[in-house]
Parts: sequence; structure tokens; C-alpha cells
Amino acid sequence: MLFGKVTGTVVSTRKDEKLEGLTLLLVQQVDARGKMTNQYVVAADAMGAGMGEMVMFATGSSARQTDKTENRPIDAVIMAIVDTWEIEGDVVYDKYGADTVHA
Amino acid sequence: MLFGKVTGTVVSTRKDEKLEGLTLLLVQQVDARGKMTNQYVVAADAMGAGMGEMVMFATGSSARQTDKTENRPIDAVIMAIVDTWEIEGDVVYDKYGADTVHA
Amino acid sequence: MLFGKVTGTVVSTRKDEKLEGLTLLLVQQVDARGKMTNQYVVAADAMGAGMGEMVMFATGSSARQTDKTENRPIDAVIMAIVDTWEIEGDVVYDKYGADTVHA
Amino acid sequence: MLFGKVTGTVVSTRKDEKLEGLTLLLVQQVDARGKMTNQYVVAADAMGAGMGEMVMFATGSSARQTDKTENRPIDAVIMAIVDTWEIEGDVVYDKYGADTVHA
Amino acid sequence: MLFGKVTGTVVSTRKDEKLEGLTLLLVQQVDARGKMTNQYVVAADAMGAGMGEMVMFATGSSARQTDKTENRPIDAVIMAIVDTWEIEGDVVYDKYGADTVHA
Repeated sequence: MLFGKVTGTVVSTRKDEKLEGLTLLLVQQVDARGKMTNQYVVAADAMGAGMGEMVMFATGSSARQTDKTENRPIDAVIMAIVDTWEIEGDVVYDKYGADTVHA
Repeated sequence: MLFGKVTGTVVSTRKDEKLEGLTLLLVQQVDARGKMTNQYVVAADAMGAGMGEMVMFATGSSARQTDKTENRPIDAVIMAIVDTWEIEGDVVYDKYGADTVHA
Repeated sequence: MLFGKVTGTVVSTRKDEKLEGLTLLLVQQVDARGKMTNQYVVAADAMGAGMGEMVMFATGSSARQTDKTENRPIDAVIMAIVDTWEIEGDVVYDKYGADTVHA
Repeated sequence: MLFGKVTGTVVSTRKDEKLEGLTLLLVQQVDARGKMTNQYVVAADAMGAGMGEMVMFATGSSARQTDKTENRPIDAVIMAIVDTWEIEGDVVYDKYGADTVHA
Repeated sequence: MLFGKVTGTVVSTRKDEKLEGLTLLLVQQVDARGKMTNQYVVAADAMGAGMGEMVMFATGSSARQTDKTENRPIDAVIMAIVDTWEIEGDVVYDKYGADTVHA
């Protein structure tokens, strides 16, 4: 899994029928130090993530292992909202604290 | 999933029998800001996408989860036509509005 | 799928028993404009492709979806021979015409 | 599989129900010579790995082949703790010996 | 599949039980011209490959399609030993002949 920040929304009315009812969000990849990168992915939202939230996403066939995404033609899913992460004891990101240290 | 623009058509008469009846389109990857990149993929079209249309495509085993692509030897599928997407409230792309902002 | 040109042959006598009877070819990746790249893949040939032919190959689990490659330990397959492809109306490659425009 | 060093912990209370009971660790990729890289992955821990330990991780559908990760929406797993590795007879890493040679 | 040279060995005593009995080898990726690259992978050995041997490896779910690797949490397998490969009639590598041309 990788860290990502939900930065956008995607609207699609003409889509495969198996996508009905799924929310697709634009997620920008975040590196281990909490810094935004230029990489993005459009991910199915299995968590009700909000704009600006720090999440984890899984890709490939693993993206179809949640109840919401089973058998659907999607290759990325938001499967967790991040509270905090630390590297060698330093808090890199804390949802309830100050802003991301290195963002 | 990633955003892509349908920029080309591919013709193949000698192909695996499981590809019969599938349309293969050349899709150029578009970044989160709506800018074309040099990356491309040839994707099976599950949506009847037209030339120049902005689409989303899924790759890997997920590409075989539509009715049209099930069990076929394809690793990329167009599974949605994009209407609009926004980043932090800014419209990056709007199918029915002006051209893509950053294209 | 990606475009590739068959540029080489591979001989292996000591191989997994599930590979028996499969031809493995060296395929060099070609970009959307028909230009050879430095990227290559060794792909199972499901099409009887010849040296120098322009093909499409699929990777990952999708490579195991042809009759010839089912359940075999291969991660890339040639699943089509390309006749032509066009970008925005320009012929990039034509098997029966002149050489590839940008090769 | 790739080598990685466990450098961080991740806390997530809002996550897909299939993630319950799994520990997620931040793993920084290590190259063949034992040098840390900037690449990271958040991996499910099937081994009870500790902070700073050198591990191997598998990605994709293979990450779901341990008893702890079966059918879960995770795309990376720590499936082994590394004791030692050698390149052409030189010890690159030795858990019980001196520090990693090139770290 | 890609070409690789077996350059190292990996020892792990604490590993997932499904890895018991499998040999893991360090394989450095080789390009189409036979030149070593900096990329590596730790692969399960389905072939009894020796140090310094030129092999082919498959990745992803395809790595689990040999009898030795079925259902195991591994994402790369050595599934063939290379005898020779040629590009446009030139021998790039010949196991029984001289050294690799470009190595």
C-alpha cells in the first residue's frame, strides 16, 4: 500500500455497469516523509474518505478484496484512513495534531 | 485507474480468438492536471469511446472484470468516460465545458 | 497492451515442464509513435509471430488467458499481430505499406 | 521479492473490516548492495517483524498467499526476516554480524 | 519474462511456513543486449539454478504457476535457464560458448 492524499473528485455518467454506486476519488501519492508527489491514481473509495484526508490505497487484484469493490473493474482502492505514521520514532503525519511535518 | 485520452485506433486481423469482437484503442495517459504524457496503452474498449474522448482505464486482472473483457488476454480496459474532474475545487477537465484547462 | 517488435529468439532446454511446447520471443517495446525503446520483454508467442513483426503483448495474469498459455508460468504473451495503427488520423505503422513512419 | 528495512509504524482506526488484526509497517526498499532507497511500501506484517529489521516483502496477489493475509485488501506483505545475503561470495548483510556493509 | 543473472544467495530462517523448502536467489536483471543492470529481484528457484547462471524469471501471479511455487507468497520465480539468445541474428548470449558478448 502507499500513502495518498485525497485531492479531487471525478464524475462519470457513462461507465461500466459494475461501477454503479462506487465513488471514485483522485488520490495524489505521498512519499514516506509525507511529501506530495506528482503521481496520482483514481481510486474507488471503500471508506467514505473526505477531501484532503490522508489515506492508504491498495492496487491490482488486491483492490477488489473489499466488499464494496469485489468483482468490479477497478485497480485501486482506498482501504484505510491514516491516523498517524512514524519513521524511527518521529511522527511524520498526525491527523489530529499539527499539519503534516514535511508537507 | 488513470486518466487517458483516446488518440488512436489499432487494426489487427491476426489475433488470439478470444479477442474477436473487441475494439482496441490507443490511449495516451493524462496526468492529474489534465496534461498529456508520453505514456500510452492499448486498451480494450468496454464503453464505445470515441476519438478524442477523455476516459479512465484500469489495468491488470481488473481489466478482465467487465462483461466484454472477461477471460480475455487483455491487460487494460476503458471502463468509464470522464465527464469532469476537479482538484481542490478547481475544474481540471469538463467534457461539456471549455477545453481542458491545462491541456 | 503495448506495441513491440519481435527482434530475437531465446533457446532454453532446462525449463519448467509447463513451458514445454511454448515459443519464447524477445520483444522490444515500441512507443506510440512507432519508435523502438530500450525496454524489452521475453514473451510467449500465441500467434506464430515472425522475426521483425510488429505485435501487441499483454502482461501479468492476462498473459495466461490464451489457450496456449493457460496455467503456465509466463507473464507476457504476444496475443496479436498489428496490421496498422493511427494517431489522430495519421498512419503510424502499416504492415503492408511503407516502413513504420518514425522507426 | 525485494529487500526492505522496517523503519516505521502506521496507525489507522478507520479501515476496511478485512484489515482488522493486521499490523501495517512502513518498509523502505533496500537495493542489492544493502543501501537504503527512497522507495517505500506499507506492508502487512505476517512475521512479527521489529523496527529496524531487514525483511523481504512480496507484492501483488502474492501478498495474499499467507494465512494472515488471505483475501484481504493488501498488496504487500512481509513474508520473511533476512538473516544474511551474499553477492558473489561477499556478505552484503548479516543480521547477527556487523552492520550492513554498505548501509 | 526478463533475463537475469544469479549473483547471490539469501538465507532466512524466520519466514512464512509456506516458504519452507524453497530456495531464494538474488537475481540481477540483464538487459536485451546482455548487460547487467542495477535492478534486482529475489526469486524462488524452480530450476536448481547455479551461481552465475543466466536465467529467465517471471513475476506476479505467474510466479505461482510452477509446481514448486503454487500458492506460496512469492512474486518472482526462476522458470528457465537460458542457453542462448539472439537479436537480429547476432548471438547476444551463449551458455556454452564464449562469455556474454556485452557483459
